Amino acid sequence: MAETYTLHEYSRSGNCYKIKLTAALLGVPLECREYDILRGETRTPEFLANVNANGRIPVLQIDEGDQARFLPESNAACWYLASGSDLIPQDRFAQADMLRWMFFEQYNHEPNVATLRFWMKFVGEENLSPEQRAQIGSKKVAGHAALALMDEQLASRAFLTGETASLADIALFAYTHVADEAGIALDEFGNITSWIKRIEGLPGFIPMES
Amino acid sequence: MAETYTLHEYSRSGNCYKIKLTAALLGVPLECREYDILRGETRTPEFLANVNANGRIPVLQIDEGDQARFLPESNAACWYLASGSDLIPQDRFAQADMLRWMFFEQYNHEPNVATLRFWMKFVGEENLSPEQRAQIGSKKVAGHAALALMDEQLASRAFLTGETASLADIALFAYTHVADEAGIALDEFGNITSWIKRIEGLPGFIPMES
Repeated sequence: MAETYTLHEYSRSGNCYKIKLTAALLGVPLECREYDILRGETRTPEFLANVNANGRIPVLQIDEGDQARFLPESNAACWYLASGSDLIPQDRFAQADMLRWMFFEQYNHEPNVATLRFWMKFVGEENLSPEQRAQIGSKKVAGHAALALMDEQLASRAFLTGETASLADIALFAYTHVADEAGIALDEFGNITSWIKRIEGLPGFIPMES
Repeated sequence: MAETYTLHEYSRSGNCYKIKLTAALLGVPLECREYDILRGETRTPEFLANVNANGRIPVLQIDEGDQARFLPESNAACWYLASGSDLIPQDRFAQADMLRWMFFEQYNHEPNVATLRFWMKFVGEENLSPEQRAQIGSKKVAGHAALALMDEQLASRAFLTGETASLADIALFAYTHVADEAGIALDEFGNITSWIKRIEGLPGFIPMES
């Protein structure tokens, strides 16, 4: 029996976009169910009990016959969808190196670039708590350093782990290409700018909702 | 030609311990090279040029003949070492679900539990910056929530992704079993406490240096 996929998402989230972009590049159909995270729609008792006890989107729902399984964490959902495809290198080192950039994305990039973008674009700087406001400076420095590391990596190859696109590129494209919305300009990162154009030119590419 | 492995590490770091525990459970020999991160030994020009441009440990060095390759990010290094072993489930969903917990570790667990432990145990609360001190409260809440989610998951299975240990357990064991050093007591998490004992009983288990 064929599997079908439903993405529990907030469509302006880059983490949700990663999964939609993966599905689009693979030509895999994906239904989407929208939640307004600003209204706490992923913190309801129903969501916590049935979709994700962590109260977060995205979650990939995998249906097969009567069975529904739920997979939180954007990069894990991308991995599931892309399993066996060219978006995951089969070479042992290349595969681990791809995961290296995906863990880097979650630890060094997303908490800085994505969080700043969320604060600036969705919450509004005037609505931030004093604790959040105190972190803007250090998050800008750390976000800038994450982009500099990517730019250095992209100096010698077309995509992060080699000459073809992998999940590492999808994971890092999501928030990198809108880094200006986080207050971090991409002008000085010429290799990243070229890489963004290469990703936008991939067959099946879809843009992020703004 | 056989590969040999060198771990560039700070031996009291839980992120380094993950890789050593993976190697120990697999029976894979691992040389270790120590850096004092408190003295900035991973920020020297030599380290940045030759080991990791991100200035961080751990980094797994993989030597094969004249070729040396370097793999940063603890969970990616564990993935490389465990490739093809029982520590990575082959089932498509189980494998993605294992990665789900490893991404959760980097995003929801490590920045709270590990960072608090580093601040309390190694830096000293009196030496924290005002910005860091302002985050203690929210990091305790978020760290507690991460442990609560693990405890719920472990209510119905022996290990995080099923009845046998996987890299998800190794990744999350590292800082969970010393959560008290981060100021988060494990007393209320009975399932985690039992799971810790199960991991400590695995053949080949080695303890973390304190």
